[in-house]
Amino acid sequence: MGAHLTAGAIAELAAFVRIPSVSSQPAHAADVVTAAGWLAERLRRAGLEADLIRTPGHPVVLGSWRGAPGRPTVLLYGHYDVQPPGPATAWQSPPFVPQIRGNRLYGRGASDDKGQVLCQVAALDRLLRTGGRLPVNVICLYEGEEEIGSPSLPAVLDRHREELAVDAVLVCDTRMRAVDRPALVYGLRGAAALEVVVTGPPRDLHSGEHGGAVHNPATALCEIVASLHDADGVVRVPGFYAGVGNPARVAGGGAGPDWGVPGRTAYERTTAWPAISVHGLAAGHTGPGASSVIPASALARIGLRVVPGQDPRVVAGRVADHLAGVTPATVRTSVRVTSAADPVLVRRDGPAVRAAAYACTEVFGVPPVLVRSGGTIPAVAMLQGALGVDPVLLGFGLTADRMHAPDESFHLPTYARGIATLAAYLRRLGARRRLPSLAEARRG
Amino acid sequence: MGAHLTAGAIAELAAFVRIPSVSSQPAHAADVVTAAGWLAERLRRAGLEADLIRTPGHPVVLGSWRGAPGRPTVLLYGHYDVQPPGPATAWQSPPFVPQIRGNRLYGRGASDDKGQVLCQVAALDRLLRTGGRLPVNVICLYEGEEEIGSPSLPAVLDRHREELAVDAVLVCDTRMRAVDRPALVYGLRGAAALEVVVTGPPRDLHSGEHGGAVHNPATALCEIVASLHDADGVVRVPGFYAGVGNPARVAGGGAGPDWGVPGRTAYERTTAWPAISVHGLAAGHTGPGASSVIPASALARIGLRVVPGQDPRVVAGRVADHLAGVTPATVRTSVRVTSAADPVLVRRDGPAVRAAAYACTEVFGVPPVLVRSGGTIPAVAMLQGALGVDPVLLGFGLTADRMHAPDESFHLPTYARGIATLAAYLRRLGARRRLPSLAEARRG
Repeated sequence: MGAHLTAGAIAELAAFVRIPSVSSQPAHAADVVTAAGWLAERLRRAGLEADLIRTPGHPVVLGSWRGAPGRPTVLLYGHYDVQPPGPATAWQSPPFVPQIRGNRLYGRGASDDKGQVLCQVAALDRLLRTGGRLPVNVICLYEGEEEIGSPSLPAVLDRHREELAVDAVLVCDTRMRAVDRPALVYGLRGAAALEVVVTGPPRDLHSGEHGGAVHNPATALCEIVASLHDADGVVRVPGFYAGVGNPARVAGGGAGPDWGVPGRTAYERTTAWPAISVHGLAAGHTGPGASSVIPASALARIGLRVVPGQDPRVVAGRVADHLAGVTPATVRTSVRVTSAADPVLVRRDGPAVRAAAYACTEVFGVPPVLVRSGGTIPAVAMLQGALGVDPVLLGFGLTADRMHAPDESFHLPTYARGIATLAAYLRRLGARRRLPSLAEARRG
Repeated sequence: MGAHLTAGAIAELAAFVRIPSVSSQPAHAADVVTAAGWLAERLRRAGLEADLIRTPGHPVVLGSWRGAPGRPTVLLYGHYDVQPPGPATAWQSPPFVPQIRGNRLYGRGASDDKGQVLCQVAALDRLLRTGGRLPVNVICLYEGEEEIGSPSLPAVLDRHREELAVDAVLVCDTRMRAVDRPALVYGLRGAAALEVVVTGPPRDLHSGEHGGAVHNPATALCEIVASLHDADGVVRVPGFYAGVGNPARVAGGGAGPDWGVPGRTAYERTTAWPAISVHGLAAGHTGPGASSVIPASALARIGLRVVPGQDPRVVAGRVADHLAGVTPATVRTSVRVTSAADPVLVRRDGPAVRAAAYACTEVFGVPPVLVRSGGTIPAVAMLQGALGVDPVLLGFGLTADRMHAPDESFHLPTYARGIATLAAYLRRLGARRRLPSLAEARRG
């Protein structure tokens, strides 16, 4: 397949992973800036112009190469911030001390998304190094807040909208179907996060003195959360499924498991149907030792996933109304919507999609699967809305990469193929001749 | 009423409270021993013999004065260990730096139970100092594990059963009805603690990828906990109320609030009826920042209170059976019973009760109310069972003392009356003449 990886590319990934650019932890704010600076410098070294765009949060790295007048302009998106590593003891090697074991490089962010960002940069570097020029005009937009919901991105897109007039957007932050099967993601669920607090007595009460005569907020929280689903796993919130596409059948996946919307596959349930997940519960005392307390309040963090055709804010409002409606007079429930991100559905037949499919087929020998993802990348809907272009989501992560988990790693052979695929994509996009249809690409 | 408090008694309480004898925290193990040693020395100073009895946990202080042959022997019970102070910021003055404000001495353990223990010791000291002898034989048993359920006490009672042959047991670890109204507690609820863990997927899952197709253990835990009560607050566990006395009506209390066994007062619900309280919930992520996780497991700490006529182990088994029975096939529930303590009901007409009532009337000018408590003191059932004597529970705590909470304090005028009452009690118990009935005491 002709995909090779230089020692330099591996050393580069190690250097990038070594910077603990954890966007959610204020203690790492300086590291995030360091990572941004490192990445801008890397773009310059490849031959692009690159600057840091300041935001109220972490900076955006904006690179550009505009030496192909008359050719399309493509925006390459990725992020240089990473998830918190979690407990260091859960890692086989320290999260920010990159280590190669087998054909993988281990470290937080190796796959999500530093390795994938470097696939883009290395492809540009290779094209510029070998041909002296790129086949298209390129803008690289690498943000440092993807893992915290891209709060600063909309303002950056708005402020720079003239220089961000592009013909195509390529996002590398998703997974392949398998190590030998690339995937183009054409749909993402949206999301909303709710913080639900049930309060009762003005202070913690002793369960000996009061147990049996006071509606315990922790008990009430359980009762309120339990009202969200029926025994099958169908959400009972009125209007929760409104806007779900009809028939909302999507190809792929096997027989459904025994929980969720009946008669649907797991793939359908997780990509084409909205869902409610309890992300966290906290009440009273659960540490060492006993404490016989009726807690004054109880907390649930609840995450919603919505699908194209639904507005996460509207659905969150319906869930909040339901929670208020089922709250008995003995306690009070407050609901705060802490975030909302739109779902995405992109056309599967544009020239950029076809070019990506062509490039995958060239490098992997098989066309990519076209899939919907159950996850949410807030930046994608922001890019789609602000730039008026359907992003192409072509990622090089693998399930085995353990993104967001301990022992995250990036698969080095896939790193090599990712670089080759992106180079092929840019070449294809810059070619004068008509791009083949996806069906043609599949036959190819 | 003749109750006075010397400066020495206040200084003594301050010195005792200053020792952070937190039995549940291993870091304070040495402090617990220090408190035991301090208390034994105090007993010796009053004129008793005193030793520390070693246990696998914290020591028991055993004091004795046996100079009244032919007279009854009374065991005085209390505990010198204290609850953890909780967050220091919640305290107006540091929990282990005793401070007098108004007519109260503030500090962790001031009321529960160091102040009440010192009521006993000071009464003995006063009787020995003024009369050179005690009217009865006395054994002081002060343990250092009351706040953790008295795990070592049964073995100590068994090992020392010959020297612990007593005619009466007086426990000072309860509350008065009000500052001018003493209370004799004749019933305690028993308790059991359950740790409930619901598990689902082998590891945490991403709610984007899996939300809607996996029965979330946190959701399932809520559903399982919600099954414990109906909408009125009646427990739905089969057999939960079996053994509750018929009619289980007890005097006292006002109109019942709107949650609990219907048609009962709050006092009845919390003293004569069993109850289930959720003491704690924990699942997933509830700290700063967002985490879109379907947690692999979810935890509930559940406390049961049972009433005389019920066995806490049997009731805990029924609750565990219910939890297993309502668990759907999509998740697994494990239940561990982590503690169990028996309920207590004592005769209200014995000579020791009458002597206590007489003493209260002498010092407070009114007879004590006879009440049941919803709380649990495991040691009381242990003393009752091992010594074959119905303990008399005559405590000098007040609701305003904020036992177990920040800003715990002991009311100094009540400290004085507690000493006087206990001295009167011991004198009365040692008198030759017939003890009056409670009705007589009330008229007196």
